[in-house]
Amino acid sequence: MATVGFVGLGIMGRPMLRNLLKAGHTVVAYGRNAEKLDACVKEGAQRGASNSDVGARAPMVVTMLPDGPEVEEVVLGAEGILSGSKPGSLIIDMSSINPLVSQKIAAACAAKGVDFLDAPVSGGEPKAIEGTLAIMVGGDEENFRKAEPILKCMGSSVTLTGPVGAGNTTKLANQIMVACNIAAMGEALTLATRCGLNPEVVVNAVKGGLAGSAVLNAKGPMLLARNFKPGFKINLHQKDLRNALETAEANRVCLPITALVQQMISSLVAHGKGDLDHSAIATFVEAASHVEVKVHGA
Amino acid sequence: MATVGFVGLGIMGRPMLRNLLKAGHTVVAYGRNAEKLDACVKEGAQRGASNSDVGARAPMVVTMLPDGPEVEEVVLGAEGILSGSKPGSLIIDMSSINPLVSQKIAAACAAKGVDFLDAPVSGGEPKAIEGTLAIMVGGDEENFRKAEPILKCMGSSVTLTGPVGAGNTTKLANQIMVACNIAAMGEALTLATRCGLNPEVVVNAVKGGLAGSAVLNAKGPMLLARNFKPGFKINLHQKDLRNALETAEANRVCLPITALVQQMISSLVAHGKGDLDHSAIATFVEAASHVEVKVHGA
Repeated sequence: MATVGFVGLGIMGRPMLRNLLKAGHTVVAYGRNAEKLDACVKEGAQRGASNSDVGARAPMVVTMLPDGPEVEEVVLGAEGILSGSKPGSLIIDMSSINPLVSQKIAAACAAKGVDFLDAPVSGGEPKAIEGTLAIMVGGDEENFRKAEPILKCMGSSVTLTGPVGAGNTTKLANQIMVACNIAAMGEALTLATRCGLNPEVVVNAVKGGLAGSAVLNAKGPMLLARNFKPGFKINLHQKDLRNALETAEANRVCLPITALVQQMISSLVAHGKGDLDHSAIATFVEAASHVEVKVHGA
Repeated sequence: MATVGFVGLGIMGRPMLRNLLKAGHTVVAYGRNAEKLDACVKEGAQRGASNSDVGARAPMVVTMLPDGPEVEEVVLGAEGILSGSKPGSLIIDMSSINPLVSQKIAAACAAKGVDFLDAPVSGGEPKAIEGTLAIMVGGDEENFRKAEPILKCMGSSVTLTGPVGAGNTTKLANQIMVACNIAAMGEALTLATRCGLNPEVVVNAVKGGLAGSAVLNAKGPMLLARNFKPGFKINLHQKDLRNALETAEANRVCLPITALVQQMISSLVAHGKGDLDHSAIATFVEAASHVEVKVHGA
């Protein structure tokens, strides 16, 4: 069993840390929220004094934070993990951030002889709790092999997708398809509803064919039931598409649909809907068309 | 067993007609192409002399034609099916057309005491041959019950989706999601490829999650293999999105992504790619980004 550092005790980090403890690993935890850190210690984690302290005590450290700036601060800051890490240790960032930032952090780590993997996840809180996240890893093969037994405590699918940054690039590809598929579902069902059809009948008529998708199966029923309890918040999807568009511009890639969907999200955020589940991306076109997609008679 | 008229002996119509014959129905066939009509007669169909003749001889007539103008001509033209039809007979249009045109034709039929259903299909030539099309029907319940045994010879899923026009509206909803999902897949994989990832690894890493779709499973491999043999041609998808956008405008519905994808299709058609499979919609963003999505080393 290994000693694993863990920084970031939010909605995702807490259950992921718990799964490391369950598997028998020693976990040195740290987070700025004292209450959450206390709770982790009660569950069996060792108390880290600071990011730097976690780096000093654990040869392998997992971070799970909101976005790139937080990861830069926690890893590279004056009192960051890296300031404590011994050469030869490994930092695994499981946050969903801009892959360009992953590469920048990896370079700073390498300069101190510390290895780095980006390993963002998909599946949200339920799969974090179950330990069945999909984990997309970027980095070199040797570090991947070192991290794999740790990652397998938290995820059911752990894939090496390329060098550092590739994990987050894969995650961005995922988030582009999810957001665009939700928005396309919104257009299709808004048209059908305005034309007098029952959108539930439409979903059932098409979901077995080429229009079928995990989005239609999982998010279609939420839209029809007007149930936008998150799940995954629009605010977070806005962050992911921002990272996708920044990465695209830096790499000279043109993403017109992603850019359009990001503008739809901006409108929803302006209307105070940023904390709704991302299935509500489909409501932009509804509102623009002055119609509401719901089951007939509902 | 019934006597069924059949007009439209193209790539889809031929195998559909064959499945009616196989089921033991008497089929009176007609189409402008003498060679194709001869072939149908050889296979057991009775030879119709004209659209009008088919209407006069069959109490139920199926039409399978390219678009609305052709259906209007064949059904409502001076020598059209309706000119021969007896009151109480039923015309089932299985073409994919603008639902507003379906409603116009239904009204003209009703004025002569003839019933009408729109019943477009999804699944393409392979499922037409197998008799496993998905058939989306618009019309009243009584006519639907009358047509159902006939439709079940051609399709494995036959759904009444609402009044006349609802079949085609459902088909448009289907085609909106398919086209937009293909284009979104193109954006995701173009970004990943330009960032140095192997797109096949990306597809495999995400297809089991919320980004998963029938499009990713069926069209992703075609894109990666640069295999754009149709299947379903971009030209036909352009027609479907044109009908969707016309229907949307007439019903005061705003479809920004559909409109954008239709412009991508216009560009592909301008470059002579209208006869490629619609999976090639994904290549618009590739070309715009000066990159080609293909498997590493391929």
